[in-house]
Amino acid sequence: MSVIPAVDQAAEAQVRADDRTHVFHSWSAQALIDPPPVAGGSGATFWDYQGNSYLDFSSQLVNLNLGHQHPDLVAAIVKQAERLATIQPSMANDVRGELARLISEVSPEGFTKVFFTNGGADANENAVRMARLVTGKRKVLSMYRSYHGNTTTAISLTGDPRRWANEPADGSVAKFFGPYAYRSAFHAESEEQESERALAHLEQTIILEGASTIGAIIIESVVGSNGVLVPPPGYLRGVRALCDKYNIMWIADEVMVGFGRTGQWWSFQADGATPDLITFAKGVNSGYVPLGGVVISDRIASHFDTVVFPGGLTYSGHPLACAVGVATFEVFRRDGILERVNDLGERIVAPRLAQMAERHPSVGEVRGRGLFWAIELVKNKDTREPLVPFNASGADAAPMNAFAAAAKKAGVWPFIHFNRTHIAPPLIISEDDLIRGLDVIDEALNVADGYTE
Amino acid sequence: MSVIPAVDQAAEAQVRADDRTHVFHSWSAQALIDPPPVAGGSGATFWDYQGNSYLDFSSQLVNLNLGHQHPDLVAAIVKQAERLATIQPSMANDVRGELARLISEVSPEGFTKVFFTNGGADANENAVRMARLVTGKRKVLSMYRSYHGNTTTAISLTGDPRRWANEPADGSVAKFFGPYAYRSAFHAESEEQESERALAHLEQTIILEGASTIGAIIIESVVGSNGVLVPPPGYLRGVRALCDKYNIMWIADEVMVGFGRTGQWWSFQADGATPDLITFAKGVNSGYVPLGGVVISDRIASHFDTVVFPGGLTYSGHPLACAVGVATFEVFRRDGILERVNDLGERIVAPRLAQMAERHPSVGEVRGRGLFWAIELVKNKDTREPLVPFNASGADAAPMNAFAAAAKKAGVWPFIHFNRTHIAPPLIISEDDLIRGLDVIDEALNVADGYTE
Ligand SMILES: Cc1ncc(COP(=O)(O)O)c(C=O)c1O
Ligand SMILES: Cc1ncc(COP(=O)(O)O)c(C=O)c1O
Repeated sequence: MSVIPAVDQAAEAQVRADDRTHVFHSWSAQALIDPPPVAGGSGATFWDYQGNSYLDFSSQLVNLNLGHQHPDLVAAIVKQAERLATIQPSMANDVRGELARLISEVSPEGFTKVFFTNGGADANENAVRMARLVTGKRKVLSMYRSYHGNTTTAISLTGDPRRWANEPADGSVAKFFGPYAYRSAFHAESEEQESERALAHLEQTIILEGASTIGAIIIESVVGSNGVLVPPPGYLRGVRALCDKYNIMWIADEVMVGFGRTGQWWSFQADGATPDLITFAKGVNSGYVPLGGVVISDRIASHFDTVVFPGGLTYSGHPLACAVGVATFEVFRRDGILERVNDLGERIVAPRLAQMAERHPSVGEVRGRGLFWAIELVKNKDTREPLVPFNASGADAAPMNAFAAAAKKAGVWPFIHFNRTHIAPPLIISEDDLIRGLDVIDEALNVADGYTE
Repeated sequence: MSVIPAVDQAAEAQVRADDRTHVFHSWSAQALIDPPPVAGGSGATFWDYQGNSYLDFSSQLVNLNLGHQHPDLVAAIVKQAERLATIQPSMANDVRGELARLISEVSPEGFTKVFFTNGGADANENAVRMARLVTGKRKVLSMYRSYHGNTTTAISLTGDPRRWANEPADGSVAKFFGPYAYRSAFHAESEEQESERALAHLEQTIILEGASTIGAIIIESVVGSNGVLVPPPGYLRGVRALCDKYNIMWIADEVMVGFGRTGQWWSFQADGATPDLITFAKGVNSGYVPLGGVVISDRIASHFDTVVFPGGLTYSGHPLACAVGVATFEVFRRDGILERVNDLGERIVAPRLAQMAERHPSVGEVRGRGLFWAIELVKNKDTREPLVPFNASGADAAPMNAFAAAAKKAGVWPFIHFNRTHIAPPLIISEDDLIRGLDVIDEALNVADGYTE
């Protein structure tokens, strides 16, 4: 896909003026940011008003699984908008029911019902609500190094610094450490040991927090923004066993990694383990229309057959959003997206990142699956000291900013978080673009190398 | 608009099957509901697969201000979908900035910035976040008889039974009584007295909860689902004065009543009072694409110029949603929607409801403004005993269900809550349809009359 964006200074000036004057941005000090005006996008590329275009190695916020302006998704919006843009949640609607059926069909046996929300945060809020009511137990365990959304319970579940300024929030949340072999909290020396010890730690936490008080454990099936932490084999099966033992509901947060990002419909499937609730958003329709939801196991759903479920929202099961979800399934199947993700991940990304890890003194570890990878940057490979401190900002973050600037200059828009860059392009990226993007990252790592000791 | 819907039994069967098997519905016991399949809609009308069509006197969930399938809104979706369906919140986007500017322009002086969310609940969550951080005080006061959304803080703010099964949730919320002259909590005998006494009660509550602990007071500018409670003159100005006196942020929840429902852009404008934060959703784009947000006074926005705002969401400022918001402003202005709402409310609805109150023994009170009215049904006009008990369900709710069934049979889909029906049609309803719908309500009230004592 070759796009030659037009230069349009006047349009850019207007966009920038409206934005700086009137738009209040997420997670930011408003006077210290300068949001880049974007003019358009297509496939894995987007462009500004200055004639620059970027390969999107971050799929926006890792939601744009089928890329910008996918013709089938755009057609689905147009068709549904012309039929029926919206209808309230208490009525039955064709595309809403169809998408719920399609999602159920790719979920484990016994996941029949879907509750739709607007995004990931409210999906998690509602999953927690279900688990609490079904078990009659209020506490929820979640991981350090996680993100689950910005509403009160979702931000309390979140195990990264975005939570701090919001505390205290939902008081019934406790944190535990997940597996992270490269920086093991358990002094483990192998993946196997990491898995065992992380499970022992989780069981200790359950016992000390009180199994009789804990309704749910929420886990990103592959930790997303906080590091592309793929759980070691057996970990999720172990979580399942602990949840069975203590009557706790396992909520799999698949908001970022569901719908093909790691090469399967649901990332927990790689470990052959089955949760009680699955939350999703982003990839379900690539974010063309806000949509999220909860896939509910029959045990939990049936609790609400005769008991009122005390949650809801005006746009639950929004037809326009659902229509794009239905089209997403068609594209995934017709174009073999899952196969493609696995193939590109194994054949192109994995070996190339392994090379980078070899070649660059700044690369401490590479890890990932499918089209979801992290390159973790360090000052020193032996000490593993991060290239920038935890939660670095301002001058402290300079090395990462220099790396990002180099990538952007060469036409790749990277995902940056703390001392990592993630490789998360749209799943429809062409092989050529993927290789070109990796070339740029490889080159930009030379800048990071300059900060090693 | 005359629509002759086609009968299509096969399609209906499929919709019903998918819905009953796979869709988990808001606020319901799943086995005890039978969601009606809807085939389409146009203007103030929607229809099923059986050849029945209904005048929508509830505007879906009081979000469909410009009616079903408004050609300008559909065109806006199509145009934006073909340009750029989505872009992440951290970039600047033309329609996002334009909508923020348009919203700012109809807001009071000094409301320059808009933070966009997906709906009403997360708008309120983020407004509360801002108020807490700016004041350094955590407690929030909200009214009994209110609804603010389903996420943890929003449901805690909610002063109706939907909160109960979710408690305890956000522990930093306390409730007070708002003005409701027909059932005065303050034994008031006039609107003026109701306003004064409600303010005295609010001040007492502030003092006893501790002004030094209270960051915000949230009030629906006209209470929506819980009764179309229009505050008496001076009440909101009194709230403003109390908030100034005690350094508390006033959050005006305009989710249901903003964007013309009561004949003004914002319903608080009728009292000449100005809040600190305004939350909106629904009417901003009639819910064609999920959208909500917070309009922020400069005092609060500037706090976050150099301090990071610790909230955000993947779809903040979604371009597709914002494009429909921009089109909404164009339609409102071109078609004089505000003027129309005031005219229809005063000329058609008010006198007709006054007649009904006169004629029907079951009508205790009618009240409202613009195209937002409540008919409150009673067993006995003297005792004012509600026609059904508070929060009635099952057999207890039979009188209201019988009324609703009669209205539906005659082609009007009514809004029902407890012992009230609300008159809340799309703001574009034709005068003929409005009169026809009121005729049906009038006739159906005969059924309610049968339950009076
Ligand atoms: C794993 C995970 N859960 C939940 C969320 C929250 O989703 P949203 O931003 O749609 O509320 C995100 C968003 O990045 C996420 O990555
Ligand atoms: C006054 C008010 N606030 C907030 C909400 C919550 O909005 P949403 O359902 O979009 O979360 C509603 C919804 O009915 C409402 O009426």
